[in-house]
Amino acid sequence: MATRRPLITLTSDFGSADHFVGAMKGVILSICPGAQIVDITHELRPYEIAEAAFTFGEAWRWFPKGTIHVAIVDPGVGSARRPIVAEAAGHLFVAPDNGILTSALAQPKAKAREVTKKSYFLRTVSTTFHGRDVFAPLAAHLAAGVRPAIMGDLVADALRLRIDKPGQTSKRQWTGTILKIDRFGNVITNFKLSEFPWIATNRFVLTVGFEQVSVLAGHYAECEYGELYAIAGSSGYIEIVLRESSAARKLGVAAGAPVDLMGWAREDR
Amino acid sequence: MATRRPLITLTSDFGSADHFVGAMKGVILSICPGAQIVDITHELRPYEIAEAAFTFGEAWRWFPKGTIHVAIVDPGVGSARRPIVAEAAGHLFVAPDNGILTSALAQPKAKAREVTKKSYFLRTVSTTFHGRDVFAPLAAHLAAGVRPAIMGDLVADALRLRIDKPGQTSKRQWTGTILKIDRFGNVITNFKLSEFPWIATNRFVLTVGFEQVSVLAGHYAECEYGELYAIAGSSGYIEIVLRESSAARKLGVAAGAPVDLMGWAREDR
Amino acid sequence: MATRRPLITLTSDFGSADHFVGAMKGVILSICPGAQIVDITHELRPYEIAEAAFTFGEAWRWFPKGTIHVAIVDPGVGSARRPIVAEAAGHLFVAPDNGILTSALAQPKAKAREVTKKSYFLRTVSTTFHGRDVFAPLAAHLAAGVRPAIMGDLVADALRLRIDKPGQTSKRQWTGTILKIDRFGNVITNFKLSEFPWIATNRFVLTVGFEQVSVLAGHYAECEYGELYAIAGSSGYIEIVLRESSAARKLGVAAGAPVDLMGWAREDR
Repeated sequence: MATRRPLITLTSDFGSADHFVGAMKGVILSICPGAQIVDITHELRPYEIAEAAFTFGEAWRWFPKGTIHVAIVDPGVGSARRPIVAEAAGHLFVAPDNGILTSALAQPKAKAREVTKKSYFLRTVSTTFHGRDVFAPLAAHLAAGVRPAIMGDLVADALRLRIDKPGQTSKRQWTGTILKIDRFGNVITNFKLSEFPWIATNRFVLTVGFEQVSVLAGHYAECEYGELYAIAGSSGYIEIVLRESSAARKLGVAAGAPVDLMGWAREDR
Repeated sequence: MATRRPLITLTSDFGSADHFVGAMKGVILSICPGAQIVDITHELRPYEIAEAAFTFGEAWRWFPKGTIHVAIVDPGVGSARRPIVAEAAGHLFVAPDNGILTSALAQPKAKAREVTKKSYFLRTVSTTFHGRDVFAPLAAHLAAGVRPAIMGDLVADALRLRIDKPGQTSKRQWTGTILKIDRFGNVITNFKLSEFPWIATNRFVLTVGFEQVSVLAGHYAECEYGELYAIAGSSGYIEIVLRESSAARKLGVAAGAPVDLMGWAREDR
Repeated sequence: MATRRPLITLTSDFGSADHFVGAMKGVILSICPGAQIVDITHELRPYEIAEAAFTFGEAWRWFPKGTIHVAIVDPGVGSARRPIVAEAAGHLFVAPDNGILTSALAQPKAKAREVTKKSYFLRTVSTTFHGRDVFAPLAAHLAAGVRPAIMGDLVADALRLRIDKPGQTSKRQWTGTILKIDRFGNVITNFKLSEFPWIATNRFVLTVGFEQVSVLAGHYAECEYGELYAIAGSSGYIEIVLRESSAARKLGVAAGAPVDLMGWAREDR
């Protein structure tokens, strides 16, 4: 059986129109010619770390163990923020220490190291493009077999964001937030159906902007055109959807906006 | 000689900014680590199946025999619409049964099966993301060597769209439609030069919006700036073009709009 | 040790929403199934050859020697402009002869050939899509081991653009230009810090649009929000930046606009 080629995924806010992603791929393949590079996305919104943490978190977990993931949204590039190599759930992660790895660091037994061994960077490191000069080379060296432990010491304080838990404001009320607007204009909230399972059987009202949503649909084709519905999205979060159209545009909301949930048992009215 | 790696192409309206495509790639590589994944496009317009069928049709036929193609525009996800595996022209296809495979099903001896063997899906299937939970795993199992016949029975009624034939409205007049506006603003009509070969030698008038086009140019550099021309596009269809600019913007038209063709022999005036 | 798979990069203005890129990949893999295809970008601005030459130049040089690069922005497709295969710095290049290869042809001992051997094109060559019919097959044949010398004779006059040198207008003044606006709205000028090293230590004023910039920041996090700074970009060029925002939007400028530099020694005031 042939040796499996090491797999590296790339996630960033570098966009697709510039040389940034191409330069990173070139650096990786120069250091580890056998690497297989897979793009997750380069269209993360610039500087939006919380949204990036969500998107990256919903993608990396589907890859096989042993995959090396590079995740970069990096407004602090060139400053003192640390480059991190993490190990979690059998995957490896390379990223700036700014919260983008929150979903990985939440795994049991996750470990993070501050990379201090500069011999695994490019020889010359610019102050503005660590994707090419720091993170791509680190991933390529990991792919080539370098052990994380050689790159730097464990740190306990790698940054984790606290974004994915709604807060309870009264017995029957919670305040959450919009994690992301997806391609289709679906509004992904941070209410997990698994944590609010009564949404499926009891009465609820989700308030977003000036609109209220109180019906949970099973799938898109069940929804009336033009009406807002809640739906249990593929990430496990409740989404607000508008059939074959953009709920976000109708609601006039963006990632980060608040979402209020009120709920009560049917017999409780 | 090394065994060739199985080749899987991906075509969808999932966009490039979300986790959708990354999750699909992860699922594929988890099931079939040796697969080679090639993106065709993920920027198909949401829900526009006819346009998607055209774009996908112009791409898949250039790949080598044996390629497995996943094509997804799927407004009916979660409803009763069937998942299909098709075989045509030596290629394999995985898609929802909604017409997106029209170009493949038009091939001689094309076969389509409704996939009913749920063991080739992910264990848990969401109601909103069959790209990840149904179609990616099917493609990966095909790549790993599972035969289509094992996945489900042949069906004769897989959906085919009837979009690519202009209708004749009088002796010298036909009504067609715009298949797609491409990146450059070229207006791709559904008039095939091979079916209307006299366009190259006789008089014709194409009417689109409020404009008429009556000159067929050989290539872009032959066109005067600012003037609309017909050109025999690389897909075999007549396109309306505006040199180094957008004919679609000048015409104010979109995919699906009507195009009228009038033609007569030169000596016939 | 396994034979390394031949590596082909793709750079174009074909966009990501059409069948163009997919068709090219299919053609390449039909001719050379073992090729590894890496996208640099397909979002170059249509017809903008100078900008494309810059972007491509900043990407290809990071790939390993032996890589085959296809670069296409081709407003002259179908006309008499020549298809070129070039060899430079141990890399191979396939492109229309319109200046997009300027950075490669500037390398010591660079060689360019006009491809005249039409057996390395597709059998039928359209007048509008040489990416699929000419350049993809050439790259695939190179990947399959065909030597450039067999494809055509050396030419000395392959087109080179003269865009990257500012002109001196007086003892202390130079006029340059904007090479590109990047994803983040950073304004990349054609002033190289290595050619104007005194910018780092002496007084200078960069004038772009109605604004003047006279402070060189070390990295983004050093910059005050809302203020314009010069920064030594990762390509070696001076960029005008606005922290976590778009300098280009604030300045109202686009690629090709003029940039004036005035400089004098500190003691010289």
